[in-house]
Amino acid sequence: MTRRIFITIEYDGAPFVGWQRQDNGITVQQELEEAAFAFTGEKINVQGAGRTDSGVHALGQVAHLDVPEKFAPNRVMEALNAHLSHTAISVLDAYEVPDDAHARFSAIGRRYLYRILPRRQPPALDAGRVWHHKQPLDADAMQAGADMLIGRHDFNSFRAAQCQAESSIRTLDILQVEQVSAEIHLHVEARSFLHHQVRNIAGTLALVGTGKWQPDDVKAALAAADRSAAGPTAPPHGLYLTDVFYPDGIGKRV
Amino acid sequence: MTRRIFITIEYDGAPFVGWQRQDNGITVQQELEEAAFAFTGEKINVQGAGRTDSGVHALGQVAHLDVPEKFAPNRVMEALNAHLSHTAISVLDAYEVPDDAHARFSAIGRRYLYRILPRRQPPALDAGRVWHHKQPLDADAMQAGADMLIGRHDFNSFRAAQCQAESSIRTLDILQVEQVSAEIHLHVEARSFLHHQVRNIAGTLALVGTGKWQPDDVKAALAAADRSAAGPTAPPHGLYLTDVFYPDGIGKRV
Repeated sequence: MTRRIFITIEYDGAPFVGWQRQDNGITVQQELEEAAFAFTGEKINVQGAGRTDSGVHALGQVAHLDVPEKFAPNRVMEALNAHLSHTAISVLDAYEVPDDAHARFSAIGRRYLYRILPRRQPPALDAGRVWHHKQPLDADAMQAGADMLIGRHDFNSFRAAQCQAESSIRTLDILQVEQVSAEIHLHVEARSFLHHQVRNIAGTLALVGTGKWQPDDVKAALAAADRSAAGPTAPPHGLYLTDVFYPDGIGKRV
Repeated sequence: MTRRIFITIEYDGAPFVGWQRQDNGITVQQELEEAAFAFTGEKINVQGAGRTDSGVHALGQVAHLDVPEKFAPNRVMEALNAHLSHTAISVLDAYEVPDDAHARFSAIGRRYLYRILPRRQPPALDAGRVWHHKQPLDADAMQAGADMLIGRHDFNSFRAAQCQAESSIRTLDILQVEQVSAEIHLHVEARSFLHHQVRNIAGTLALVGTGKWQPDDVKAALAAADRSAAGPTAPPHGLYLTDVFYPDGIGKRV
């Protein structure tokens, strides 16, 4: 008999080629599966809510795994962390969920943070943790551009060529631009996202922030439904998966 | 003719054996002096306000250097950063000061931040940036202990054996314990500090935070004027030099 556990995970994206197992480098999923094997002796699949790209960080990724019943959630967390101590991954929480709860398919919302540092001087302590944008950015203008994207739209202009989703229609519930001391933070929430959607939005809003684009240009880019109409893809190291939301009953403990 | 420039510097302490030039590894001072040489062609001494130890970070270290008059402060900042791009050092500001202004001896105050993360789970993104303290800490108890140290005292119990200061009397102007989400931050300000003073205070207040010590035990440790009477030295990677203060006229531009 097994029990299904949800784990909340923090990681530094820099050393990984992303969440999902692949042949060209170390992934977060692989490290977690190896840690699970180390303490259970079983090959256990670890299924994540969001397949973060190479270099993207997580403060609150969620994944599920089925462990032998003798392992209580807290023991799973402790054992995983013990075997992850050589990595940039930490398990922050673990709790039992119904057997049919699925980290990816049961999720009803995802939240990302995108951090931009708009100044000439490079970051020292936050190198690799923010997008260092050398030109100043006007947060109010960026919010005006962001407002064009909130709600249900065809986001074809904002998805990567390799995006595998059947439909490019998504609903952005939150797209908030916040000035936090010297940084600009984008808070983005939706049920689900297209590939590179947040980074393409960040790259586009930065054009508005510099004044090269007007907020209305974002509306036109969206209407074009063509990737070449929107701005460039912002770098992965400014992006953080912060939260994954579930319905009552399989949600995060509070 | 030269002009004297003050620079404000941010650095990640991890790759360095400290601020001050020495034979056993790379130092921040050495990197800055090599960068200054690279764009001036002259051997220029860079004198820091605080000689941070190996592993200690800075958000606002200040140093002075004398550059040929043709280099305006902004050009000094740009040139230093260009030659520091391979390092974890960034120059945030540069401004001209009177010739007799001295980064270390003119300073009238220094401010440090000490970050503690009290939880079982290790940090992933902030590994090496906070003291990971596995037991919970009571911030209110820590503040009560901290209150025993504020003001003018003989801090002999809180200085390293190798401390070279003639007197161990110092005046702590600020010692504030703040809960910031999951972390505890210590804010410490004084005209000057003894070697390891902030880290020894942090290690001692952590004993109070766990309940092993009562706040009054901090008073007794101070009165003992003996290093063995106080708590252990907290690790360097939780410590940040955040500000150096100067009198009007040679101070930081606002």
